[in-house]
Amino acid sequence: MTGNSLDRHVPLYAQRTAGMRASAVRSLFAVANRPEVVSLAGGMPYLKSLPLEAVAAEAAALVSQDGLVALQYGSGQGIAELREQICQVMSLEGIVAHPDDVVVTVGSQMALDLTTRIFCDPGDVILAEAPSYVGALSTFTAYQATVVHVAMDDDGLVPEALEAAIDSVRRSGRRAKFLYTIPNFHNPAGVTLSAERRVRIAQLCREAGIPVLEDNPYGLLGFDDTVHRAIRADDADNVIYLGSFSKTFAPGLRVGWVLAPHAVREKLVLANESATLNPPVFNQMLISRYLAGFDWQGQIKAYRQTYAERRDAMIGALTAHMPAGTTWTHPEGGFYVWVTLPEGFDTAAMLPRAVTARVAYVPGTAFYHDGLGARQMRLSFCYPTPERIVEGVRRLAGVLESELDVMRTFGTGGAGGTVAPRQVRGPASPSPDTA
Amino acid sequence: MTGNSLDRHVPLYAQRTAGMRASAVRSLFAVANRPEVVSLAGGMPYLKSLPLEAVAAEAAALVSQDGLVALQYGSGQGIAELREQICQVMSLEGIVAHPDDVVVTVGSQMALDLTTRIFCDPGDVILAEAPSYVGALSTFTAYQATVVHVAMDDDGLVPEALEAAIDSVRRSGRRAKFLYTIPNFHNPAGVTLSAERRVRIAQLCREAGIPVLEDNPYGLLGFDDTVHRAIRADDADNVIYLGSFSKTFAPGLRVGWVLAPHAVREKLVLANESATLNPPVFNQMLISRYLAGFDWQGQIKAYRQTYAERRDAMIGALTAHMPAGTTWTHPEGGFYVWVTLPEGFDTAAMLPRAVTARVAYVPGTAFYHDGLGARQMRLSFCYPTPERIVEGVRRLAGVLESELDVMRTFGTGGAGGTVAPRQVRGPASPSPDTA
Repeated sequence: MTGNSLDRHVPLYAQRTAGMRASAVRSLFAVANRPEVVSLAGGMPYLKSLPLEAVAAEAAALVSQDGLVALQYGSGQGIAELREQICQVMSLEGIVAHPDDVVVTVGSQMALDLTTRIFCDPGDVILAEAPSYVGALSTFTAYQATVVHVAMDDDGLVPEALEAAIDSVRRSGRRAKFLYTIPNFHNPAGVTLSAERRVRIAQLCREAGIPVLEDNPYGLLGFDDTVHRAIRADDADNVIYLGSFSKTFAPGLRVGWVLAPHAVREKLVLANESATLNPPVFNQMLISRYLAGFDWQGQIKAYRQTYAERRDAMIGALTAHMPAGTTWTHPEGGFYVWVTLPEGFDTAAMLPRAVTARVAYVPGTAFYHDGLGARQMRLSFCYPTPERIVEGVRRLAGVLESELDVMRTFGTGGAGGTVAPRQVRGPASPSPDTA
Repeated sequence: MTGNSLDRHVPLYAQRTAGMRASAVRSLFAVANRPEVVSLAGGMPYLKSLPLEAVAAEAAALVSQDGLVALQYGSGQGIAELREQICQVMSLEGIVAHPDDVVVTVGSQMALDLTTRIFCDPGDVILAEAPSYVGALSTFTAYQATVVHVAMDDDGLVPEALEAAIDSVRRSGRRAKFLYTIPNFHNPAGVTLSAERRVRIAQLCREAGIPVLEDNPYGLLGFDDTVHRAIRADDADNVIYLGSFSKTFAPGLRVGWVLAPHAVREKLVLANESATLNPPVFNQMLISRYLAGFDWQGQIKAYRQTYAERRDAMIGALTAHMPAGTTWTHPEGGFYVWVTLPEGFDTAAMLPRAVTARVAYVPGTAFYHDGLGARQMRLSFCYPTPERIVEGVRRLAGVLESELDVMRTFGTGGAGGTVAPRQVRGPASPSPDTA
C-alpha cells in the first residue's frame, strides 16, 4: 500500500492536514545529499570547528555527576540556570529580560509552533516578509492560518508596505494575529532590517495591537562582529522573541527558546507541557555547562570567520559566473544569498536539471505562501567549503546557460517540463567530486 | 503585572487557549516536592539503578566519534538505526513492524500531540478510559476535542461499555476519531486489559472504523516478567501504537515513538517536521548506542524488581492502614495504584491537608474530563523507597482519620473548605523526614 489511494483513514483526518503537504522537492533532496552533488540547499551549520573533545568530556561529566537530574523529567518551562544564561546571551542584543519570562523549547521551531498554537484560529492572518522562512510558513499553514506577505528591500521589511498590509487586512474584516519577522541576515533573503525601520515597525505594530514575533537565530553571526539591537530591546510588551542555539552551538540538541510578555509566557508553558511535558533536561544541562565552561563567544567568532569566507566565495563566484540580468543580495551575516534570475527562468522546474548537473538549491517558491518566487532561489553558503561553493556556483551557471540556450531556441523557459533532465548539458568538464 | 487582568493580548488568543489551564494543584505540588513530603504523586522513574558511568562513557564516545552527525540536524522521522531497534523492542510484545512505519518523537507525549493534530478538528470525539492519563486529556483538550469516557473494571476497558459509547456518539451525530487506551498497568488505574478483551475491542473498533491509539509506556514493566501481547500485534491496519524509552531507560532524553499504518505515518512525519524539524539526533543516537551496547533487558528486569518491591510495600501499607470501605487496585506492573475512598471524601479538597501532613497524591478528578473521580486518588509507588511509601501511606491514613472525625461531627466531607489546613491533625508522632 503506497500513498493515500488505499488509506482507510482518509475520512478521519483533521481539516488541518489538507495544509500539510510533503515538499515537492523532498525526493530531489535525497539525491542532492549524495556527496557528488554540491548542495547549496541546506541550512546546516558547519560543525567542524566545535571543540568536540571538550564537549564529549562535558557530556560524560554531566551524566556521571548529575545523571539523576539530567536523565529525569523536568520543568515544562526549562531549567532555571539555562534560562538565566539565555538572558545573558540576549543581553548582547540589548535585551533586558527576566528568566521567568523565558520558555525553553525543542528548537525554536517548537517555539514557532507553540506561539502559533496560542494565537491562531483557522483563517486568522499572519503577516510575514516576502519571502519568509519555509519552516515558519509550514507551521502557520498547519494551524490553518493565512499568511499575508509584506514586501522587503535591501534594508529589510518595508514599513510602508507593512502599514498598507495592516490596513488591507483590517478592511477585509480579518484579524492579523502577529507580524513574523527575521530582522537579521534574513532566511532566505539575506538582508538585515535597518535600525530606523526597527523603531518604525515596532511602533506600527504596537499602534495596531499586533504583536511582533521576532525570530533571531542568526543575530550573533554578523561578519563584521556587529550585533544589531533586537526589536525586543525597545519593546518588552509587544514583542515575542525567538532564539536558538542551533546556529551558535549545535542544532542536534534541539534547544531554542521564546521570550514573551508574562501572560503570554504562562500560556506558552502550558502549551509546551501539553506538547512534550518538558524539553529534554539532558540537552538543556549540556548547553548550560557549555555556556558556563567554554569561550562560547570565541566559538561564535570562529563561526563568523568561517561563514564570512564562504559568503565571500559565493559572492565572488556569482559575480564571475552568473549570466547578465541576474541579481543577488549581499548578506552581512547568516547563511544565505537570495538570487533573482532574469525573466523566463523557473527555478522549481529547473531543479531536476541542476541536481543532474550535481548542484542543488532551494527554489524561491518554497518561501512564499502564494506561489511567487518562480525565478528566485536560495543559495546557502554555510556548509560547503569555499572551493565547493565556487564549483557549485560554476555548475549552476552551466545549468543556467543551458536553460538560456533552450529559451533562445524555443522562446520559453524550462517550466512545464519542456526540457527533460536528460537533455541538460552540464558544465564543460564535470570532474568527479566527492569531497 | 501578574495574571491575565492586564494582559493586552487577551483579544488575540486562539479559541483553543480556553482549554489550556494550569492545574489547580500545581502550586501545591511545588510544596509537595519538598524533601520532608512523601510524594506519592509523581510518575518519575527511579533512575538510581541505571549504569550511569557506562552511559557517561557512551555519551562521550558519541560526541567524540560521531559528534558531527549527533550534533547536526537530522531526519524528521528519526534516525534509521534507532527505528530498527525500536522494532526489535516492540517484537517482545508480538509486534511485527517495518522501521519505515516508525516515527521518533520528543517523548510519546509529542506522539500524542501529533496524532491528535492529524485526526481531530474542534468538537471531534475521542473515546478514552475512565479514568485516563492526565497528559493525554490535556492534549486532547488543547485540540478542542471532546473526551467521552468509557468504563473500566479490574480487567481494563469494558467492551460492552465501549460498544455503547460508540453507538451513543454515532447517534448524537458526532464523530469518534479514535479510542485512546493504555492496556498495560494503566495510568492511573493500575489495571491491565485481558487478552480476550483485546481481541474484542480491536474488532469493535475495526468494525466501527475507529482507530485504536494504543499507549504502552509500561508494557515491559510487568512484575512477573509477563509481557502482554500488544493490540497492534493482531491489527496492523487499525492500531496506532505509542512507545517510550522514558520508563524503560530514562525520561530526560525525551525519546518516544509512534508506529502507524503507512499513510498515517506519512502525515505524522510532516507534522513532526512542522513541530520540531526533527527530534534531537544526539538523544536518538545515545539511546541507539545504549540498546546496542548494554543489557537493556537486564536493566528492565532490575526496574521490575525495584517497582515490584515498592508495589508490595504500598499494597501492604494500604491493607494495614486504610479505613474501612476504602478499595484499591492491585497492579501487576507499572507505577500506580488507584484508590477509592468511602462516600463523603473529596480528594481534591483534602489535598492541602494531606500536604500539610507531609504526604502528596494526585486527586482523581485530574484523570477525568468530566469532573468525576472526587473520592479517588492516584498513588505512585515508582519513586520513593519502600520505607518512605509505608510512611507516606501511614500519614495519608492519619489525614483520612481526621476527615472522618470531621464528617462524623458535621455530617459532611471536607469539601467546600469546611476544614482549614491548620485544623488537620497529622500522624501521632510526625518525625522529621528528609530522606
